[in-house]
Amino acid sequence: MSISMYQASIPVFVRTFSNLAAILKKAAAYAEAKKIDPRVLLDARLAPDMLPLTRQVQIASDSAKGCGARLAAVDVPKFEDNEASFDDLQARIAKTIAFLNSLRPEQIDGSEDREVTIPTRDQPMKFKGQPFLLHFALPNFFFHVTTAYAILRHNGLDIGKMDYLGQP
Amino acid sequence: MSISMYQASIPVFVRTFSNLAAILKKAAAYAEAKKIDPRVLLDARLAPDMLPLTRQVQIASDSAKGCGARLAAVDVPKFEDNEASFDDLQARIAKTIAFLNSLRPEQIDGSEDREVTIPTRDQPMKFKGQPFLLHFALPNFFFHVTTAYAILRHNGLDIGKMDYLGQP
Repeated sequence: MSISMYQASIPVFVRTFSNLAAILKKAAAYAEAKKIDPRVLLDARLAPDMLPLTRQVQIASDSAKGCGARLAAVDVPKFEDNEASFDDLQARIAKTIAFLNSLRPEQIDGSEDREVTIPTRDQPMKFKGQPFLLHFALPNFFFHVTTAYAILRHNGLDIGKMDYLGQP
Repeated sequence: MSISMYQASIPVFVRTFSNLAAILKKAAAYAEAKKIDPRVLLDARLAPDMLPLTRQVQIASDSAKGCGARLAAVDVPKFEDNEASFDDLQARIAKTIAFLNSLRPEQIDGSEDREVTIPTRDQPMKFKGQPFLLHFALPNFFFHVTTAYAILRHNGLDIGKMDYLGQP
């Protein structure tokens, strides 16, 4: 018995991203209730040279869809990164989840040794599928979702860790 | 081919926690160079009702050792949560990693369906081993490591995501 590459990737991304969608719904309601311009939250950062909330959500999306596509050896869907409202972010999450759910276990299972190349500003990063998933894609995905959570928490949104983890 | 429970847990915790140790070394050097009382960083929070840096590291440790022990069906080692300096946090991380590395693959492999119970303030949470690891322990661990990173970044430490991810 063991874990399949599919089980360790797609349902993990989908679950946590669904939790993030619920957190962003609370953030939109909070902005409305407190008469905060939603842009204030969408553009909020934890440091001047850190990325704002909107980019954290976009990169979490990129990380999840990029991982799913690369493990399945299909093209990574391109999204335009033009989200400018909480509704836009909800749509971004929904289309990311729809893409993830379109990948079938048989496309991803067996990808442990698949060559994965990630383009970067410098040299491309090369991995085998399993270390790519466990030591790069999952940590990176959780990093951006947690940072989105932390930005909202820092800006007064009343959420707790169970919003991030979801109900067991 | 597939991923073993051991591969998806212990080396993932050890790697990310080693990266956090390196980040905390940078934080200690930063405090010294800027003549910041280390307690300012150790007690820093992103919101008045969020936990400070020291607790984030302790809980990341608890999450990792608790997951390893529960999957291996051994007692969870108790640490005293009395860390009061960066050196103390380094020692906490080192003993957490030493415990994780003491667990052998054959103790953890095959724990996919093992019953895992997490005590909480309210009702205990019950899981099977695999969803416990993938949908609770890993997200929880990355949450606290990322929050520690975010607290330091918010307080001016010059680190980037590669410090968190480590070199591939």
